[in-house]
Amino acid sequence: MEQLVKYEQLYTFTKNIFLKVGCTDTDATTATKTLLSADLRGVDSHGIARLSGYIRLWEAKRINTTPLIKIIHETPSTAVIDGDAGLGLVVAPYAMQIAISKAKNVGTGWVSVQNSNHFGIAGIHAMMALQNDMIGIAMTNASALVAPTFAKQKMLGTNPIAVAIPAGSEAAFVADFATTTAANGKLEIQQRKNKPVPKGWVQTHDGTDSTNANELKDGGALLPLGSNREGSSHKGYMLGSIVDIFSGVLSGANYGPWVPPFPAYIPMPLNMPGKGIGHFFGAMRIDAFRPAADFKTDMDNWIQAFKNAEPILPEQNVIIPGEPETAMEAERREKGIPIIESVINDLVLLGKKFGVDF
Amino acid sequence: MEQLVKYEQLYTFTKNIFLKVGCTDTDATTATKTLLSADLRGVDSHGIARLSGYIRLWEAKRINTTPLIKIIHETPSTAVIDGDAGLGLVVAPYAMQIAISKAKNVGTGWVSVQNSNHFGIAGIHAMMALQNDMIGIAMTNASALVAPTFAKQKMLGTNPIAVAIPAGSEAAFVADFATTTAANGKLEIQQRKNKPVPKGWVQTHDGTDSTNANELKDGGALLPLGSNREGSSHKGYMLGSIVDIFSGVLSGANYGPWVPPFPAYIPMPLNMPGKGIGHFFGAMRIDAFRPAADFKTDMDNWIQAFKNAEPILPEQNVIIPGEPETAMEAERREKGIPIIESVINDLVLLGKKFGVDF
Repeated sequence: MEQLVKYEQLYTFTKNIFLKVGCTDTDATTATKTLLSADLRGVDSHGIARLSGYIRLWEAKRINTTPLIKIIHETPSTAVIDGDAGLGLVVAPYAMQIAISKAKNVGTGWVSVQNSNHFGIAGIHAMMALQNDMIGIAMTNASALVAPTFAKQKMLGTNPIAVAIPAGSEAAFVADFATTTAANGKLEIQQRKNKPVPKGWVQTHDGTDSTNANELKDGGALLPLGSNREGSSHKGYMLGSIVDIFSGVLSGANYGPWVPPFPAYIPMPLNMPGKGIGHFFGAMRIDAFRPAADFKTDMDNWIQAFKNAEPILPEQNVIIPGEPETAMEAERREKGIPIIESVINDLVLLGKKFGVDF
Repeated sequence: MEQLVKYEQLYTFTKNIFLKVGCTDTDATTATKTLLSADLRGVDSHGIARLSGYIRLWEAKRINTTPLIKIIHETPSTAVIDGDAGLGLVVAPYAMQIAISKAKNVGTGWVSVQNSNHFGIAGIHAMMALQNDMIGIAMTNASALVAPTFAKQKMLGTNPIAVAIPAGSEAAFVADFATTTAANGKLEIQQRKNKPVPKGWVQTHDGTDSTNANELKDGGALLPLGSNREGSSHKGYMLGSIVDIFSGVLSGANYGPWVPPFPAYIPMPLNMPGKGIGHFFGAMRIDAFRPAADFKTDMDNWIQAFKNAEPILPEQNVIIPGEPETAMEAERREKGIPIIESVINDLVLLGKKFGVDF
């Protein structure tokens, strides 16, 4: 069972909740837009469904809603930012804006962030670069759910990478993907349907192949992109590791098995080597390489060539990254956003707690 | 049948061949070291086995052995380089050195390259950053062998990504991987053994699953990392696309189906939109983010944690990227490099043609 809810209703509700927990008006607006961009783009697992999770982190004093976000080190093309335990939904746009400013000055900007929290979907931060005729890059580490190749133990988060690249008459190229075979949200869909997951998505607590959608609750792990040794899961493991090191080690945040969990009821890891969760952002000005108009003409040509690549089935062309999400956003802005019953109930309860009507 | 050949013998022979086709002494040295780094590190498909292929490209006038490599556009943190159709083995180290110089000045350096040729293994270029306490990044596009998700048509090369990250007492982290499930070299190993390949590596000319190691010769394609839709091959397709755009579109090189082929007997694509093959390099100074000593302490901690992650089988621990290659190099420098008979024969013929003893 799901219900179509207008974006404006979700926006007002979410912003009021963020105001109630102490965010400034500006921060509440930023956090709301960032969070709900997931619902608009069809990444339902990362949007309003997580609002009460963020609030529980605030209740557990793991999120500071009045952070003093600051640059703690910088060069002309780089910065490290301390998010002061703020909402990642606010810290990330702040950091990405600094990457963009640096790119304006010296061609590119690269920002590593410590002491942050979950930042919603990676793609929305990378996309901030587009309006500046820049390529945007965003990544984050997250608490460990993924076993590296040959391991039982969960050592990496789903550690997503997003890259947004402007085009001319075509829509921008926006890739945004977890470095696992399947994101956790895809498991949740199968859990709700009471169905198994394909082989290669998860393993049991002792490292055996599994198709149980609830395997993570039984101590199992997600598998890196590639699924197994034959499918080159070591490449997914390397990708997830690179995200972890750029986000966590380069910033002085936590990394690997020490990244703080999203559910507030899970205790913090012991002997944490850094501060909070880490992110990494990049912005590259197109005209730091070649005239933006020439680049965009070639990007249009690239996109058209791939769209028109000979398909296996005549009814399914090659998909350009970002295309389905753009179409989804247009539809959902018009018709509303489908919210499942359990999330509606959760939001109603959350509203009651804070005296905000859903 | 294979024969152990000393590195020094391969070095002298290869350098003499590059001198015979007109390289300067400096360029011949650079090209030889770059090419043979593949043999030392165990990537046999990309080393001396390809020497005669490079020479055939020179004979076909597709490689210029006296290139005037130059910066055609730059900002403090970026440059675009025209490789003047030179050997990628020479152009790439030149470009990476510029990325490193820019990183020294402003924290990071990013170089996109047009009008180049195949550059050997990506990892060796990324590793140039290590001795400068920098993170190194290298990628390249290549001629189309890979079908995007849902396509029959080959649109992308195996488009590798390499990332080299310094550590302290531990060996550096060096990831270097094709964005396909299996690199072409792995197919060649199965071809020589007359054995099938695992499902998920290749598809037939009409997009059907295949285990035929010779499928590419019959019009088939390699599959992106992830193998199929269920395994998230769209993520491998996105990764390969990002490499193609950063290397080809950002530099003004060719991209997608227009990247020039390595075998000199294959005609050049029609209507090529750019110049030659494209590469992309990055260098990030560690201390542009945080003190290098602190970073290295955390990297050692990261590496030790992953090495000691609980293994599925007690005899197989998690592998740190670059570790097997470093061990291979030590062994091969001491004992020699195994070269298969067909490659030996090919080198003997090549030597005779140019009056160089093998």
